[in-house]
Amino acid sequence: MNTPGFSFTQGATDGYARTGTLVTPHATVETPTFMPVGTQGSVKGITAEEVLSTDAGIVLGNTYHLWLRPGAEVVRALGGLHTFSRWPRAMLTDSGGFQVFSLSKLRTIDDDGVTFRSHLDGSLKRLTPEESIRVQAQLGADIAMAFDECPPGKADRDTIRKAMNRTTAWAKRCLAAPRGERQALFGIVQGGIHEDLRHEHLAAIAEMPFDGVALGGLSVGESVEDMHRTFDAIGHTMPAERPRYLMGVGTPRDLLVGSLAGIDMFDCVLPTRNGRNGQALTWNGRVNIKQMRNKFDTGPIDPKCTGLCCNGGGGVYSRGYLRHLYVSGEIVALRVLSLHNLHFLAELMRAMRAAIREGRAQAFVKDTLEQMRLGDQVGPVDEKGAKGDPRRK
Amino acid sequence: MNTPGFSFTQGATDGYARTGTLVTPHATVETPTFMPVGTQGSVKGITAEEVLSTDAGIVLGNTYHLWLRPGAEVVRALGGLHTFSRWPRAMLTDSGGFQVFSLSKLRTIDDDGVTFRSHLDGSLKRLTPEESIRVQAQLGADIAMAFDECPPGKADRDTIRKAMNRTTAWAKRCLAAPRGERQALFGIVQGGIHEDLRHEHLAAIAEMPFDGVALGGLSVGESVEDMHRTFDAIGHTMPAERPRYLMGVGTPRDLLVGSLAGIDMFDCVLPTRNGRNGQALTWNGRVNIKQMRNKFDTGPIDPKCTGLCCNGGGGVYSRGYLRHLYVSGEIVALRVLSLHNLHFLAELMRAMRAAIREGRAQAFVKDTLEQMRLGDQVGPVDEKGAKGDPRRK
Repeated sequence: MNTPGFSFTQGATDGYARTGTLVTPHATVETPTFMPVGTQGSVKGITAEEVLSTDAGIVLGNTYHLWLRPGAEVVRALGGLHTFSRWPRAMLTDSGGFQVFSLSKLRTIDDDGVTFRSHLDGSLKRLTPEESIRVQAQLGADIAMAFDECPPGKADRDTIRKAMNRTTAWAKRCLAAPRGERQALFGIVQGGIHEDLRHEHLAAIAEMPFDGVALGGLSVGESVEDMHRTFDAIGHTMPAERPRYLMGVGTPRDLLVGSLAGIDMFDCVLPTRNGRNGQALTWNGRVNIKQMRNKFDTGPIDPKCTGLCCNGGGGVYSRGYLRHLYVSGEIVALRVLSLHNLHFLAELMRAMRAAIREGRAQAFVKDTLEQMRLGDQVGPVDEKGAKGDPRRK
Repeated sequence: MNTPGFSFTQGATDGYARTGTLVTPHATVETPTFMPVGTQGSVKGITAEEVLSTDAGIVLGNTYHLWLRPGAEVVRALGGLHTFSRWPRAMLTDSGGFQVFSLSKLRTIDDDGVTFRSHLDGSLKRLTPEESIRVQAQLGADIAMAFDECPPGKADRDTIRKAMNRTTAWAKRCLAAPRGERQALFGIVQGGIHEDLRHEHLAAIAEMPFDGVALGGLSVGESVEDMHRTFDAIGHTMPAERPRYLMGVGTPRDLLVGSLAGIDMFDCVLPTRNGRNGQALTWNGRVNIKQMRNKFDTGPIDPKCTGLCCNGGGGVYSRGYLRHLYVSGEIVALRVLSLHNLHFLAELMRAMRAAIREGRAQAFVKDTLEQMRLGDQVGPVDEKGAKGDPRRK
């Protein structure tokens, strides 16, 4: 990593999987790691202190949302994204491009940038590589992302190739634009589910002096199998001396098999979105809290969980109590389930890092996935999460 | 107080105002005190640990809501209301009557009880004094309330007198019904805003062996002036050796002038409801967080507040940040504002107790109300809260 204040050191390896240590001006983060998403300046439903309690080292903020509301100049006037959102550890902001492509209406892409209408008030806006970097500098996260074009998962090769070329041209402009002080910049690789295009675009992005390299354009409508095949093929070929980031992907299975493919960083709204929908992630698969079987259950969501949501603090949140609160529309249910899911993914990644260090990563992933599928309240743990577009909200 | 495990000791007096110590099996509570309302088994938006952080000693639970959902037998099977809702200190449950009269449809009152349709599923239900006490025994709060008839604030004298007579007859039946072990029972005085009726009914209720005496039927649609005049006239004439409870009343002004009238206990959903509506209570009056003037404000809700919402913890929640979260519909805004309001009312009552002990209760109330009205973002601090029916949800 070229930017002062940053470093990435590879630790243990086990097959393609690896541990690492990412140092930023605000935190030292053990990888592979999952980054909770603070969409509009807060991880939905959860305070910064609670996110800290899950031991998260880095949180993602959405440039698009914060740019439109309250405005990057407001965030800056209120001390920048760290002070604004009271988050003391590392932050990463995306470029805003993904939300422009997925949320806004009437967007027109040209080689210079994207013109679109705000999903909030319909006003006309324009985002370019330079504007994205300028806005991200105002937000002031540790890590900024290059502005890319992200085509839908089922786009044809021509559309994808065009997006790759534009993303390459924009990547150069992002690198040339003035950044925030002590702010790293990651490049983004497109290429859809086509391995040859991915390798071609990776070569183009990897030769630029980005501090890290990300895979974009996955979990955008393609099948889970195609997504996994793609990052399996490309993950371990990404530059080893820089952090590798798989964007917008975060079911338990995605995190485990992504780590096996050599990925270091992940983000997804799934833990908090699932929590708000009454779903809890556990070592025995998903729990749908509103099921009748939980009505008289005095036990916690997951007896293996060490979080305040399940053990310790002021006594157990029983499944029966959480079911009642969820069915009654009480906010505390959403809070506890969201916090539990964040805590669970942090524990999952901790366990994955330990397995890599001990040379049993493959076995750990196989056993964990089997156990999750054996859970009595589980369908496949991953498919729901990968469907649709989990970064959208 | 007759029930084993309970005692009430009057402390300092200052005019009609007094401090006291209420001992229950789960807590020792300094009075005058404000009780947060845990409507459906949680104080809306707030965990038990957070309620504890405001130093609340006693929380109210709504029998009607818990009886209909999840059902008192479910709460009992999950360990009773304390274990169910993870609340370690004192609890009080209302009788369910108030919600039957305000929430349910097609209710028919007879001398034996009330038949009504559930507001949840339209099913036919019947509540009698015996059934209310039986349900409250299953819930297992420290303090149960007698089942009363609560007429609307603008009912005529005849209607009110009929409700008084019924409430008296039901009070006897409540006292005769089998209660939970170590569960106190408070009686309720009706009489609308008619001082003569209030005194008449107080005499009837006070001569029964209730552990405490409550004023019901206030803040149910009458004017604030009528309400204050009524409890000013009656509060200090309630039995001095037992706790005096003013039901469903809880704006800052209500709490202060109620304390001056000799009241010991209050409850209201106002702090959490206001929080969800973007309103913060402060020593300088109400703050409407969504006002534009807060957009660039780096300061806390109330610089005098000592809660984690305003000072300490992981850095200040700036007004600008809270405004952004509130305007964006983020749950964290509702949480912080609700917690702040609970904390503020706890601080207000602590300050009131100190003022009573130091013989400056009148001056404290006068100065505090003036300061609240002087606040630059304030209308009258009390009128909004007393309008309508703050216990309804």
